[in-house]
Amino acid sequence: MTTDTKPKSASLTANGITIAGIAKGAGMIAPNMATMLSCVVTDAVIDAPLLQKALMEATGKSFNRVVIDGDMSTNDSLLLLASGRSGVTINEANYAMFVEMLTAVCENLARKIVRDGEGATRFITIHVTHAANAHDAREIANTIAISPLVKTAFYGGDANWGRIFMAAGRAGVLMDQTKASLWYDDLQLVQNGLPLNYDETRANQLAAQPEVTVTLDLGMGSADAIIWTCDLSHEYVSINGHYRT
Amino acid sequence: MTTDTKPKSASLTANGITIAGIAKGAGMIAPNMATMLSCVVTDAVIDAPLLQKALMEATGKSFNRVVIDGDMSTNDSLLLLASGRSGVTINEANYAMFVEMLTAVCENLARKIVRDGEGATRFITIHVTHAANAHDAREIANTIAISPLVKTAFYGGDANWGRIFMAAGRAGVLMDQTKASLWYDDLQLVQNGLPLNYDETRANQLAAQPEVTVTLDLGMGSADAIIWTCDLSHEYVSINGHYRT
Repeated sequence: MTTDTKPKSASLTANGITIAGIAKGAGMIAPNMATMLSCVVTDAVIDAPLLQKALMEATGKSFNRVVIDGDMSTNDSLLLLASGRSGVTINEANYAMFVEMLTAVCENLARKIVRDGEGATRFITIHVTHAANAHDAREIANTIAISPLVKTAFYGGDANWGRIFMAAGRAGVLMDQTKASLWYDDLQLVQNGLPLNYDETRANQLAAQPEVTVTLDLGMGSADAIIWTCDLSHEYVSINGHYRT
Repeated sequence: MTTDTKPKSASLTANGITIAGIAKGAGMIAPNMATMLSCVVTDAVIDAPLLQKALMEATGKSFNRVVIDGDMSTNDSLLLLASGRSGVTINEANYAMFVEMLTAVCENLARKIVRDGEGATRFITIHVTHAANAHDAREIANTIAISPLVKTAFYGGDANWGRIFMAAGRAGVLMDQTKASLWYDDLQLVQNGLPLNYDETRANQLAAQPEVTVTLDLGMGSADAIIWTCDLSHEYVSINGHYRT
């Protein structure tokens, strides 16, 4: 959707093989890839079912963590091609190594997509921990990521944690605010639903960084989810108020 | 949430009684009232259960049609008080009249809340017709209303109907695009999923109006839903990037 996207590429060479990829982005990306076009290649020797399995694993920890504005598109594609030219065969013995390398390349590309999100000025990691189950963790992280009020607060460099709780609370899943605690990077702002006597200037500094991680510990179970997103800026409105397919 | 809200009041006198109301707004309003504080009074003589029933009916066609940005709040309140001073008793015989008057007052207030939405420059009615059921109609109307891409297109005065279809398609309910048709006011742009040879200049003029109605006919059944919403402007980002509770 962006009219002037930055090139997004990544490559990794190790263990006798190379994995390289390119991607375009980055609007309408939610909750799984969408408007994302990416091609990853490797010279490993690997059969198609194992390659597909590796790609699914890597995508879950990379492209599927990306949310830009909550809108979706119809033409997301991720291709992985293996030429076999390295002569290094991937099998059960070195599969974990291959997935790790592939995940690293995909994560690199996915992060670049978020950084190039329409009008993005901040890279925000939403980390939900100790959710009752994986579905709840994902729903809460996603709802925080798409909340216009959360996104504009980050744009304004405002550590407005109440909006994080608001978004979590409207995610449509069970949450007990008296068990929930919140951090911006390593600064804890909320414990068991109550604000701590934290340094507000420092909290706002953290919220205004180019990269910040919000950790919301729900205290409900053992599931967690990570979403990478960006803020909602004047530039996003300019781009999408005047862009036409 | 707005720092400089406009006063919102409405009253109606007829049939020997008066109904009057005031409201505040207007951010974080979705999908049912939220951050909305309103008090409506009447001098009718009416017992509490019937009054409650009337208020539920009126709210369904007024306050619960309002969506601003998809975010929710925790302190929505709508109160209806009846003093009985008019001496006019509401019973089964004139209940319909009372509900009609009450709905008119509530609709007037609800529309004012949308017009005073944070940074709003347009009043947009999303009318979904011929949905398979009421739930689907509501989900599709709501998803269109909260889509940042739909909202920014209206801000830019751009009749970008593809974004309406995108949002409908991501609502999480079954939709057959080959049965769907779309109008901006009385101008039909799409029939059975295919764009007509419509006047694009006129379509953009309609999208740029202070008030516009988008009608999406799904051709699936007989349910419908109406949502009133506003656009997403630079001013919304300014207000919420710098507002702090």
